Amino acid sequence: MTMLEIIEKKKLGKALSPAEIQFFAEAAAQKSVPDYQLAALLMAIRLNGMTDEETTELTLAMRDTGDVADLSSLPGVKVDKHSTGGVGDTTTLVLAPLVAACGAPVAKMSGRGLGHTGGTLDKLESIPGLRVSLTEEEFIRQVKEIGVAVVGQTGRLAPADKTLYALRDVTSTVDSIPLIVSSILSKKLAAGSDAIVLDVKTGSGALMQRLEDSIHLAQMMVNVGTLAGKPTLALISGMDQPLGTHVGNALEVKEAIDILAGRAGGDLKEVSLTLGGYMLVLAGLAQDHPQAVAQLTAALESGAGLEKLKQMIAAQGGDPRVCDDVGLLPQAPVKKTVLCGREGYVAGMDTMALGTAAQTMGAGRTRVEDQIDYSVGYVLRVRVGDRVTPETPLCELHARTEEDTARAEAAIRQAISWSDAPCEKAKNFYALVTSSGVTRL
Amino acid sequence: MTMLEIIEKKKLGKALSPAEIQFFAEAAAQKSVPDYQLAALLMAIRLNGMTDEETTELTLAMRDTGDVADLSSLPGVKVDKHSTGGVGDTTTLVLAPLVAACGAPVAKMSGRGLGHTGGTLDKLESIPGLRVSLTEEEFIRQVKEIGVAVVGQTGRLAPADKTLYALRDVTSTVDSIPLIVSSILSKKLAAGSDAIVLDVKTGSGALMQRLEDSIHLAQMMVNVGTLAGKPTLALISGMDQPLGTHVGNALEVKEAIDILAGRAGGDLKEVSLTLGGYMLVLAGLAQDHPQAVAQLTAALESGAGLEKLKQMIAAQGGDPRVCDDVGLLPQAPVKKTVLCGREGYVAGMDTMALGTAAQTMGAGRTRVEDQIDYSVGYVLRVRVGDRVTPETPLCELHARTEEDTARAEAAIRQAISWSDAPCEKAKNFYALVTSSGVTRL
Repeated sequence: MTMLEIIEKKKLGKALSPAEIQFFAEAAAQKSVPDYQLAALLMAIRLNGMTDEETTELTLAMRDTGDVADLSSLPGVKVDKHSTGGVGDTTTLVLAPLVAACGAPVAKMSGRGLGHTGGTLDKLESIPGLRVSLTEEEFIRQVKEIGVAVVGQTGRLAPADKTLYALRDVTSTVDSIPLIVSSILSKKLAAGSDAIVLDVKTGSGALMQRLEDSIHLAQMMVNVGTLAGKPTLALISGMDQPLGTHVGNALEVKEAIDILAGRAGGDLKEVSLTLGGYMLVLAGLAQDHPQAVAQLTAALESGAGLEKLKQMIAAQGGDPRVCDDVGLLPQAPVKKTVLCGREGYVAGMDTMALGTAAQTMGAGRTRVEDQIDYSVGYVLRVRVGDRVTPETPLCELHARTEEDTARAEAAIRQAISWSDAPCEKAKNFYALVTSSGVTRL
Repeated sequence: MTMLEIIEKKKLGKALSPAEIQFFAEAAAQKSVPDYQLAALLMAIRLNGMTDEETTELTLAMRDTGDVADLSSLPGVKVDKHSTGGVGDTTTLVLAPLVAACGAPVAKMSGRGLGHTGGTLDKLESIPGLRVSLTEEEFIRQVKEIGVAVVGQTGRLAPADKTLYALRDVTSTVDSIPLIVSSILSKKLAAGSDAIVLDVKTGSGALMQRLEDSIHLAQMMVNVGTLAGKPTLALISGMDQPLGTHVGNALEVKEAIDILAGRAGGDLKEVSLTLGGYMLVLAGLAQDHPQAVAQLTAALESGAGLEKLKQMIAAQGGDPRVCDDVGLLPQAPVKKTVLCGREGYVAGMDTMALGTAAQTMGAGRTRVEDQIDYSVGYVLRVRVGDRVTPETPLCELHARTEEDTARAEAAIRQAISWSDAPCEKAKNFYALVTSSGVTRL
């Protein structure tokens, strides 16, 4: 078997055999074939596709190029959650403590962000003292003791993905559904969970902007997860505006704490409860989704969720007092409130542009080696469909300099479109995708 | 403009702009972008295609990455000929002297072979003393003096093609029609001719084995040549058996001499006269093709063609006596005649396998650095459609060792299929493709 034969076969639109796919994954992990051959195959996969079976083989083969976490010593069904990513999307920080408070073990490995804002790890690191680098032993001990841990990768997970992801980025093959699926799920499977809840975003701030593409991606992820032996379901949720009102690392931690403390509601809370509900259902701890959401709501209202977050922060070396005093989180030197300055309705948002505005302020990385400023970002005070007057606050900027506030204000104004006539609110949920089909919501 | 944007555009199936295509060609020539990006674009072109206009731009851009020969000091219309290559295909050695004898200047740059047998340059070099490396000045002086020269590239022609051809070979993108067309025509245009006759092969020994693919390739070559301002036509000719009876470098030179000396006929002679006829028509030296073929036939019968070949060999330092005594060409140490050993009809030949048999004997290169043995090869004594008895000679092997004859005999027998019922002869011509359309022959 040679790499050239594998490229040839996929170029002709044929399905690759398990042995061929393993050859490819190992070649990527070991860098034993030249990048130009990997690149040619990636483009052939992007243009000719892969079946669910091929994608499952690729996912498993990529998983097997690295370490696989062993969570078997933890009792119960370990359910993982993954979001395809968006702006102001902090569901993990809200749902992980709540799900743990309801009795399901949450042993979660998260990632860093390359884009508008940091990933979950970056947000957590904005809490003074908190560390996310745990050994597998420490990680499992923490979940045994307090039921929840959110950490970086404990081992070398799916190294094939590292090579392929870097190449996809420079060969215009990021937007291949089989490659997205195998990249995400190889790492999820390596993280050792028993079942997976996926949050697939759709809309102006999502990887897939069109609903049908998002559903297609969700279907393949659910099929591949299921074929790999892990019960998997996906929720298609909206990214036509930032999910939370807060955008920026410490600001998003603040919003998660505000929700767990019962001081804030809104779309981030609704989506977190819905996703957490499916985690409880897959964990076998609720009979159905409404019951699961009721359990999570009770844990939120009793303060058990916030208490669980405190325990987790303390266990990972962070200062748990941030949960009682969000003023202990990093603060930006310059704060400025911007008003709408016009009457009308918020017709829509270019969520990607809003993400870039935060990135430009310093909240996100452009290159892997960039430093994130945890304190900066903004709080968006309007939602799609809102009626505003000139005096309605538009946003509250948290910036490093006056110049940054001016630039961010211009970018945010540019990203929002207005209407004189009433507009509909943006939807939070579009569809539920399970192995038995798609239910439109 | 970045390479990533260009890849993205072609991936989405859009046509590239002239500026984007120039960027790509220059990047290939200067190796200023990484191979993996070139490879991704090559695969996107292979799968999403290019329009005639894009392919013309790519051809011209590739030509302009190197030197362009200036033949303007030569009088008359300079017509070039190119064959997509096959087994036992020595038309250049037959038609170049004949066309020159009829008064059309033949200033031809040829290539070396990578495959079953050598290219035209390798065949010429089997003539003792002959050299093919001339300066542009020597080349033009020779054409002025005797009307014909067949040499290697006099300058650095289309260096972009060198990079792209090497990458295509290892990324399964050799079989892309726009990439084949731009590779061939960029070098033909750089060689400075005014008009081009193409011999596009079809059948079991051709680059394109299916007739419709060969016609498609020919149409794009004719369209691109025409768009580039050079009158261009293409003949689709058969490669369902070796064109000549002789396969191997010195053996093919012998067959060309035999034809010019009037001692041999057959398909190689017929195809050479037909192609040469179109060259005379494009050169404006005949009113129509039948008249052109009559002129060439007269030059053959008068011995003027053989005399022209002698002059050319002498001018390039070779021993012209080979034209009178083919025994002066390199001779293989082991010769063996093989009989058919059965009764019946020759139903077909796997021409590619017959080419590989010659290559295995030492007549062709597997790698660029391989040395060719000019003396080896074989003479095939049967044609498709022939009726044979057990005593009919099948072939005459010219080999380095007895073991080589045994191996070649087995390979040749394996490549020929037989029938008990009469079979049709193989066709020499399938279609003529001009800028006004396709005529089936």
